[in-house]
Amino acid sequence: LHELCGLETPALLLDRDVLDRNVARVRDRTRQLGVELRPHTKTAKSIDVVRRVLDERARGITVSVLKEAEYFFEQGVRDMVYAVGIAPCKLPHIVSLIRRGVELTVVVDSMAAARLLAEAATAARTKVPVLIELDVDAHRCGVSPGSPLLLELGHELARSPAVELHGVLTHAGESYHCRSIDAIREMAERERAGAVAAAKRLRAVGLPAPVVSIGSTPTLLFAEQLAGATEVRAGVYMFNDLFMVGLGICGIEDVAISVLVSVIGHQPRRGWIITDGGWAALSKDRGTSTQSKDQGYGLVCDALGQPLPEDLIVASLNQEHGIIRQREDKPMDVMRLPVGTLLRILPNHACATAGQFDGYHVVVGTPPAVVDFWPRVNGWI
Amino acid sequence: LHELCGLETPALLLDRDVLDRNVARVRDRTRQLGVELRPHTKTAKSIDVVRRVLDERARGITVSVLKEAEYFFEQGVRDMVYAVGIAPCKLPHIVSLIRRGVELTVVVDSMAAARLLAEAATAARTKVPVLIELDVDAHRCGVSPGSPLLLELGHELARSPAVELHGVLTHAGESYHCRSIDAIREMAERERAGAVAAAKRLRAVGLPAPVVSIGSTPTLLFAEQLAGATEVRAGVYMFNDLFMVGLGICGIEDVAISVLVSVIGHQPRRGWIITDGGWAALSKDRGTSTQSKDQGYGLVCDALGQPLPEDLIVASLNQEHGIIRQREDKPMDVMRLPVGTLLRILPNHACATAGQFDGYHVVVGTPPAVVDFWPRVNGWI
Repeated sequence: LHELCGLETPALLLDRDVLDRNVARVRDRTRQLGVELRPHTKTAKSIDVVRRVLDERARGITVSVLKEAEYFFEQGVRDMVYAVGIAPCKLPHIVSLIRRGVELTVVVDSMAAARLLAEAATAARTKVPVLIELDVDAHRCGVSPGSPLLLELGHELARSPAVELHGVLTHAGESYHCRSIDAIREMAERERAGAVAAAKRLRAVGLPAPVVSIGSTPTLLFAEQLAGATEVRAGVYMFNDLFMVGLGICGIEDVAISVLVSVIGHQPRRGWIITDGGWAALSKDRGTSTQSKDQGYGLVCDALGQPLPEDLIVASLNQEHGIIRQREDKPMDVMRLPVGTLLRILPNHACATAGQFDGYHVVVGTPPAVVDFWPRVNGWI
Repeated sequence: LHELCGLETPALLLDRDVLDRNVARVRDRTRQLGVELRPHTKTAKSIDVVRRVLDERARGITVSVLKEAEYFFEQGVRDMVYAVGIAPCKLPHIVSLIRRGVELTVVVDSMAAARLLAEAATAARTKVPVLIELDVDAHRCGVSPGSPLLLELGHELARSPAVELHGVLTHAGESYHCRSIDAIREMAERERAGAVAAAKRLRAVGLPAPVVSIGSTPTLLFAEQLAGATEVRAGVYMFNDLFMVGLGICGIEDVAISVLVSVIGHQPRRGWIITDGGWAALSKDRGTSTQSKDQGYGLVCDALGQPLPEDLIVASLNQEHGIIRQREDKPMDVMRLPVGTLLRILPNHACATAGQFDGYHVVVGTPPAVVDFWPRVNGWI
């Protein structure tokens, strides 16, 4: 506690022991399932976090923006999948990364993107590895595993000597909206089966598909088997968050990050405690609003990380102000938490909240000792 | 258009002509109302923007975090109000800024904060200017203008030679939730009258209150008169946003910032256009969801900044993906906007969206020429 007092609030805390436990859990799962892990770095955006994940079964990473690719390459990671469909304006950046030695695999899900990629790769005299992005759950992007477009795309990519078809990739994003562990398990099977079927169709017409890349934190944790998949991608599991707690995949004690805030005032008659943790710190993510337990903009813990007995949530946010009250909006003795009290807010969505900060104050033990600061790489260019 | 093609998406654009028009509008209003302007820099966080606002009637600024104070001081601005209640952990930083020559005024709304401030100022042998924060609309912080606490606080602050009471400050944040211009006008009067009454009460007992600081963009634009107020604070007016459009205080053409995104894919049967502008770029602000026209996560314009005839909004967001569809979710020819098409998304909330970026690509004219890059100061320390 004493050490947290040396920080200016709001500050992002990362509990290293919880991180390591979360990392070990997924490492055990991938061993058990017999797949490689390709951690998604979009949540942590930190080499210090990702170094704790990489090992002989997790040699490459998944990135969401090219700035992450630059950063992790500079930190010694070479093998990466850029898992967002290519915008043509980024093609020069992509080919320049590949020429610098990044083993950067891209994804395509349209003939237009495939042709633009082949043209850019040809012009730059590089060879770009590519995966066909699949849609297994009507979530967002991708081609249907059973569609004619899958094979058209495969042939189009195989035609160009400047691209190298490596297989297929999918992400069952709808697993985030499952209402039960059984539903997640079914979604995991749908993700696996769709990707494996698509790879088989490609191979059946003589196209190469050695890579079958699938994954999300929920489907990885509850899949019964992943036969045919070669690698799984997951990222949020490193930190977890209230949304994952609401999905039933972890407990409150497994959430590794929190935002340290200070009490700056009170409105006793309204039962409000005002803090300096606004949306600039927490983000405006309201993911848990669609779950059975709505956590507002975050669950309030004491400086040791324990939820307060009054069951407090962050009820509303302005840019640099947070208003805390009881979940049920009952009157409480707000003066029990005087001006200057340090509180820790558990976030709805780890990716969104962590993205509001330049880095992590790494804490260990109880009372927490601040042992390090791990910077993040935010932004796009 | 050609010049925008040189940017990697997502990118934050700032139309300099619209900015200058917005700045002139508020400058005219403050002249007409006979008050000084103290622009709030929490929206723009850029000296290049704020230099266009400062003049002989707007010599100081309002900041929301101490990092803004540091940055603007380094850029030559000395006079500033830090308009967020003090967290005790920030007191050493505050006194160090004052010792370096920042004319930094702070706000307090509790005896606890007043005492902690006086102790820190005394220990540091500095003199800290302070305003008492008022609550005129049950929005967030502050003491009621008619409360006994106002005078208690005044006497407490006057007692310490290390603090210097300058007056009162309030912000009618509830003006953002008004349903009509008349309601905003009433709120403006409530803000003015409450602050003036509080200053009078302080003066009546012999306490100094030369400063009566009020303001928000809506109340400033629609106040009938501001007699007794010495300065107004407003920030979002520099850029405007869809929330301000929904409030009726400006038009779509007055929104100065937009996020440039690329089309990266389609789901033709669902009527979806996929872009690379996710919540990491747009923020998750859903402010317009409570207004009569819900703009989703943003209104879609072409690369010239004109809303598209199909009335498209950003319907959902993932971290680096945005899904665009018609507002009424009707089928449309999504292939009309092929992969690589550049679109500009007008944001719900300028402060939140701008906060996701390191700076502004400044554009002028039609087709837009990119004439500059203006960096932002984000974060806290």
